[in-house]
This record gives sequence, structure tokens and C-alpha cells, in this order.
Amino acid sequence: MAEEVTMEKIVSLAKRRGFIFQGSEIYGGLAGTWDYGPLGVALKNNIKNLWWKTFVEERDDMYGVDAAILMNEKVWEASGHTGAGFADPMIRDKKTGAQYRLDHLLEDNGIDPTGMNPAEMAKAVSENGIKSPEGNEWGETSLFNLMFETKVGAQGDQRSYLRPETAQGIFVNFKNVIDTMRPKLPFGIAQVGKAFRNEIAPRDFIFRTREFEQMEIEYFVHPEKWEDDFENLREAVWEWLTRLGLSSDNIREYEVPKDELAHYSKRTIDFEYNYPGKGFDELLGLAYRTDHDLVSHIKASGEKLVYTPLEGEPFVPHVIEPSFGVERALMAALADAYTEDEMNGEKRTVLKLKPELAPVKAAVFPLLKNKPELVTKAREVYTVLKKDIPHILWDDNGNVGKRYRRQDEIGTPYCVTIDFDTLEDNTVTVRDRDTGEQKRVATGALTQVVQVVQ
Amino acid sequence: MAEEVTMEKIVSLAKRRGFIFQGSEIYGGLAGTWDYGPLGVALKNNIKNLWWKTFVEERDDMYGVDAAILMNEKVWEASGHTGAGFADPMIRDKKTGAQYRLDHLLEDNGIDPTGMNPAEMAKAVSENGIKSPEGNEWGETSLFNLMFETKVGAQGDQRSYLRPETAQGIFVNFKNVIDTMRPKLPFGIAQVGKAFRNEIAPRDFIFRTREFEQMEIEYFVHPEKWEDDFENLREAVWEWLTRLGLSSDNIREYEVPKDELAHYSKRTIDFEYNYPGKGFDELLGLAYRTDHDLVSHIKASGEKLVYTPLEGEPFVPHVIEPSFGVERALMAALADAYTEDEMNGEKRTVLKLKPELAPVKAAVFPLLKNKPELVTKAREVYTVLKKDIPHILWDDNGNVGKRYRRQDEIGTPYCVTIDFDTLEDNTVTVRDRDTGEQKRVATGALTQVVQVVQ
Repeated sequence: MAEEVTMEKIVSLAKRRGFIFQGSEIYGGLAGTWDYGPLGVALKNNIKNLWWKTFVEERDDMYGVDAAILMNEKVWEASGHTGAGFADPMIRDKKTGAQYRLDHLLEDNGIDPTGMNPAEMAKAVSENGIKSPEGNEWGETSLFNLMFETKVGAQGDQRSYLRPETAQGIFVNFKNVIDTMRPKLPFGIAQVGKAFRNEIAPRDFIFRTREFEQMEIEYFVHPEKWEDDFENLREAVWEWLTRLGLSSDNIREYEVPKDELAHYSKRTIDFEYNYPGKGFDELLGLAYRTDHDLVSHIKASGEKLVYTPLEGEPFVPHVIEPSFGVERALMAALADAYTEDEMNGEKRTVLKLKPELAPVKAAVFPLLKNKPELVTKAREVYTVLKKDIPHILWDDNGNVGKRYRRQDEIGTPYCVTIDFDTLEDNTVTVRDRDTGEQKRVATGALTQVVQVVQ
Repeated sequence: MAEEVTMEKIVSLAKRRGFIFQGSEIYGGLAGTWDYGPLGVALKNNIKNLWWKTFVEERDDMYGVDAAILMNEKVWEASGHTGAGFADPMIRDKKTGAQYRLDHLLEDNGIDPTGMNPAEMAKAVSENGIKSPEGNEWGETSLFNLMFETKVGAQGDQRSYLRPETAQGIFVNFKNVIDTMRPKLPFGIAQVGKAFRNEIAPRDFIFRTREFEQMEIEYFVHPEKWEDDFENLREAVWEWLTRLGLSSDNIREYEVPKDELAHYSKRTIDFEYNYPGKGFDELLGLAYRTDHDLVSHIKASGEKLVYTPLEGEPFVPHVIEPSFGVERALMAALADAYTEDEMNGEKRTVLKLKPELAPVKAAVFPLLKNKPELVTKAREVYTVLKKDIPHILWDDNGNVGKRYRRQDEIGTPYCVTIDFDTLEDNTVTVRDRDTGEQKRVATGALTQVVQVVQ
């Protein structure tokens, strides 16, 4: 019965209904940037708030921070981001000067570049006779760092970068959190915020963008107990994915093989989502990073970034990093919710979002627009309900069937219709988004029916 | 009785208790950036959420957006930000090469630079015999644009800027909101997000920073009705300031004189706050900007940025802009709440924050740490309360008096103590932050007592 869901359909709905637009659209856009409309910002905020609630507020072992996007450049030297590890290997078309990613050139020609260094990739390009798309000779190779650079200060001599990840803002504040909050191990520091990467090929809607938002935790543990903490976080991740409303059929764990792990990592699980028209790809990561990050910052800053237990000597804790992308969570939530089905013999598109994520919790209609007594009564019901539940909408356009379709498309869980019976007995019709079921509810009980229990 | 409140005291408390730290602190900082600790991020989120609730969610005439920080450079050409109007006039020390702001040099020497262009300022510096701080001759003058520049894309040829204000992200999405939401005039588009300015002299804690967060509304009105809408927004601003908990004694309106208004503005009110040790200075602005912004974008983009009424011809609406700074709201809220007084003969520092803004809503204590039956019972009370109100803390360090002082300092409205009577009758002591009053409350009624009704 259900039609095939494609990414094009989701992108189209997202634009048509005010969720997501191309960035700087009226000026022809800026590749890899996206703007969120009224419904998109509501959905995104709901996702971020639910994450913060799940991972910070409801727990006793998590501390939030919000570090600046612009940081001292030494942070990125210490973390290794200024080096080759955060750069893409490029090769230049000798004639046009255009640059191409070496790994992409190999992949496009069926050669797996995994494990090759840039020189080896260039060699493989040459040996396999891969030409530039323009058919020209190749020029020099180079490394293209993914960080956006800028200059700070009046003299223009202080280099800085837009942070390429939120994680380092956490490590840099490790000592501040220890000194002011005196947490007990194990504990986590969490942050939600923007990050930026000058991706050479931003693609797949909001999957790979140049400006994005992360929700990251650095969870500090005793080096001998990391396996238990890793398992606990893995369970917490699954609980979060359930709260996000994703079907477990669409999620799989990819245990990164030992020989593909970063040199400092002892275990990493990528959680992958089955994106429409794309298949399984990254959704979030859970990585055990040993003491690599803190030790790097200790060396570079000279600060003592240690944990001092009640009894015993200070030591550098190890870290487990659950790292989430807001846009990917949003894209997965949209994809999982997007449904085309039939109701009462009519085709419809419906976003079966979890009610706590829905941008609009209820829509209130007068049955007929041209009956003042219905409109007045409906306005009254709307006003009372809005005091309790601000995220509701008024709609009096077209017939009730059309209004249902419009609300289904944006995922509104309930539609409340005020009709002539309402004037008699103060009850309204509440229609359920997913089942289409309608029931009469006393206006006094409306808040309770519509209220989302998280 | 109350001691003088200074900015130093607030900065010190903010650092000591985990509200606000210098950005990139372990690397010597990055001037004009600040990091928020666990309590700071909670306070900041509470302020942003309250603003969004007040100005977007509770109203029927507001639409939220969240535009990208990186925008097509044409946006900033159209808005005039690439021009002289968004640049500081500088003069160079001929010998050292260091640059100084011309207007600051004049002000520091008692000369008012208002209304002078850069050439006139340079002339005034020369005529008044103002020397460089190093005593050298002056070199050339220049204009220093406040936007942070960066390059986008693999070829490095696409210039972009970190947005210096959120407002343009709203204008650029005007058509998207019109097309998808079909709002009726007057209506507003609201946005909360980061903005960046390469301030030559960031100063006064979080008052003037290089990275900051704005809460802005562009409110679109009929050109003939702007006065009424202006008054309505002015009232809404006052209501917001009340919800923020600021004393009206510390706020004043500065009606910008006609001859100081931007050329396109017909009326602007600056709302000023009486910051400790600084006096009245900018808190937020309310500006009538006519159709200046939309017309600029129509000319530059060629798009039709118009409103089409139900009857009549399409026209370009006029705009009123209420513009708020998150950091200034936070600084004012902290300053207004900061109190040193005596309670039971002891001096204390207390943050009398509005309960809905307080980072921690309640702290739960076992009277004695070494009585397992008290600790167990207290944990039980804590666990039950945390299900309803996640923002609570556990504290069992030191005696109850010390715990009260600690909670007062971070503005926790209620302290809940579990004592031996609790084991008998299931009541606890609830102590009020502001009055010190203590009352016995049944554990079953605790949520209701601590619950913050916004």
C-alpha cells in the first residue's frame, strides 16, 4: 500500500511546507548551507531540546557547556586539525587549474583508496591512466584543509578558524568543569552547537553540509572501566533513537574494524540509518578515544588536565565520545515519519512524527468559515488551548478534509473541529493523525487529550 | 544594608561557580570570546527559551526561522555591510604600524567625533596635536570592516563572511515565509542565533564581544500603520523585560534624536540598562526601518519581496525591528539578581533570579551525610522530584548552612532538607532563597511547591 519514499519527495515537502530552504536562496544560494523555516526551526529545536533533556537534564552525571565557535588557533594545532589528518588530498588540472579530490577520482574509477597516503593516491591515478574531467594533464597535488580560516583583531594578524567540531570546546573546558562542579568519575560534558567544514562536495540535502550543528558528549571514565561505560552509553544511544521515533529496522550498528580505527581509538561503533534512496550511512558515532585528546592538550597548553579521586593519585581520565549530528537526526526523523497512504479512499502524505517532535501539536478549525457563531466559539477554544499548549495553529481555509491533509503533511497529531454541536454541548471533534479516528471531547478536557507526555 | 554591586564581583562569581569563563582559557584566551559553563549554559538557554516563548510561541503573528551563519556575499553587499558604514575609521602609528580607532583617539582627548567622517576625524587628531600612544608620528588612515571574512569552496575563490547580524537572514527568507505560511499583515519573523563582529576593542565582560548571540524580529507592517505597531512592540518589549526579572528602575528608554537616526529610520528607541560600574548603556533596540531593507534586497536580487493583501495591489511592507542581545540580557539579569545581604546575622551573596531563569530549581539535601537512613530517604525524594523537575541538584557537602550559601550564590529558589522527621511523617523542610523562610511540606506536594509557573 505505502508508496516508495524518495529523498526528492522529502526535500520537496520540506521546502513547500516551510521546513528547510536552500541557504541565501534569493541570491542563487551558497552551496552546503541551508535555512530553516518556521516548521523546520520548531522541529530542529524539538530535537535539540529532547537530546539535551535525555542526555543532560535527566541524568546526574552530565554537565553542559557552550564554548565559542572562534577559538585560539593553538587549540587546533593541539588537536591535530591544522595537520594532514584533517585535509583532503587534491590534484590540480594542469590547464584549467581546477582541483579534484584524489580519493574521489579513484573511487569513481572503481579503485578503493582506503589506507593510501596522498602520494600513493596520485601514483594510482597516474598508473591507472585516470584523466582530468576536462581531459587534460594533471598538475601538482596538495592538501586542502577543511577548516574555514579567518583573521581576528584590528591588525589582522591573529589567525583563527571556525571550529570544525564542538568536541574541542569541551576538552578545553575540562578543567573549568572540574574546578567549578567537582564531578565524580564517570561523568560527561555535553555541548550542542554549530560547526563548520569546507567540504569540497556538500551533498545529499542536509546530510553533508558546510555549516552544521553537533550534539556531542565527552564522557570521562576510569581507564580500567571503559568497557562498562561504553556499553552503558551504547544503550543510552539506543534509547535516544527510540525517543527520536526511528524504527529500529532502519538503524544498524557498524563496528569499525580494528585496522580502520584511528590510531588512538580502541573501539568505535558507527550507528547508521537507512536513508531513502541512499541506503545505510552515518547517523552518529560512539568512539572510545583513550586519553588521546586530554594528553594532547596537556602537552600543548601545559595545564594539568587531571581527575583527582577522593583517595589516590590524580590521573588523566579516558574518554568515550558519543557524537550526534542535528541535521542527520532531523533527516532521519523526517524520513522515518514520511508516509504516503490512503485514508477514507483518498491518497495522503503524512509525517508520522512523534508528537513531542511535531512542530504543531494541534490545529483548531471552525467547521465553517462563514458562520460567525462557529468562528467565535472556535476562537475561544483556540485561545484557551493556546494558553496551555502554545504550539497550536488556527486554520479556516477550505473544507475540513483539505485542512486534515494540510495538517497531516506537517505532522500535526490532532485536529480539533468546532461544529454546531459544540454550541450546544461544548464538545469538539478531535481527529487523530495516524488512525483518522474521530472522537468527541469536552472542551474542558482538550488540554489533557492534546498534551504531549514526553 | 546591601553592599555595592560591582562588575568585578559578578565576573568573579560567574567564573567561580561555573557560569562564564574566558574563551580558550587554557591557551591564554582569544579576546572577545567567552565560554559558558554548566550553570551559564542553563541560564542562557532559559533566557533564549523564555524569549522564544514570549515573542514567537505565545503569539499568533510571529514565525521563526534559523538561517545559516555563512551566507552568499551578495547579501552583505545589498545590506551595505561591505561598505564604509560597517567599518571603523583607523589611523596607523607610522613607526610601529599599530592601528588605532580615530573616534576613540578623539573621545579619549575629550573631543566628540559624532557626525565626523574619517577625513574630518584625522584632521581633528592632527589639529589637536594628538600623538600616538608610543609618541610617534601618524601614518595613513584606513577603514577597518568589522565582518570576519572567510573563503568557501575547494578553489578558495568564493568569499563569504560570518554574519555580523541575524537580521539579514530574516530578510533573505521573507519570500520563503510568505510563500509557505501565507501570513497576514502585520506579522513578524524571528530568529535567535550567533553573529560575529571583529570588534577592535572587545570590553566590559560579555557586553561587547566578537562572537555573540542575537534575538531579532523583523516585524512587517502596513506603511500607514507603523506608529500603532511600534507602540505595541514597545509594550511587548517592556513585558519581556519584566519576565526577565529586571527592575524598571534600572531600565530607561533613549529616544534617538532625529538628527542621529540612520537615514532610512524614522524612529528608534534604545532601551538602556544601568549596568553596575558602567551606568546606563545599550540593552536592546527598537527601530522603525521603513522599507529600506526589503527594497535593497529587491534591487540586488531581482526578487519580488512583496506582500499581497486579500484585496488590493501587492506592496513592499515596512519593518519595525526589535533587536536583543542574548549576552546583554544575561548580563542585566545577573546584575539585577546579584545581591549581598545578611541572613540570620550572616553575610551572604545571593542571585535573586526569577525562578524560571534559575539554572537549578531546587537542591535536595540529607540533613547529615553519615546517616544512611537519611541519605537513602533523601535519594528517594531526589529521584522522585527529578522525574517531574529535571533541573535539581543533590548536595551533601558540609553543613546545611553552607549548602544554603552555595545554592543562594547560584540562585536556586528552593532548598529541600530531609531530616529525621521525614522518616516519621514524610515531610521535608523547604527553604525559600529570598526570605530564608522554612516550611514543612509533605513529600507528595513537593513538585507543586517547587514547580515554576511561567
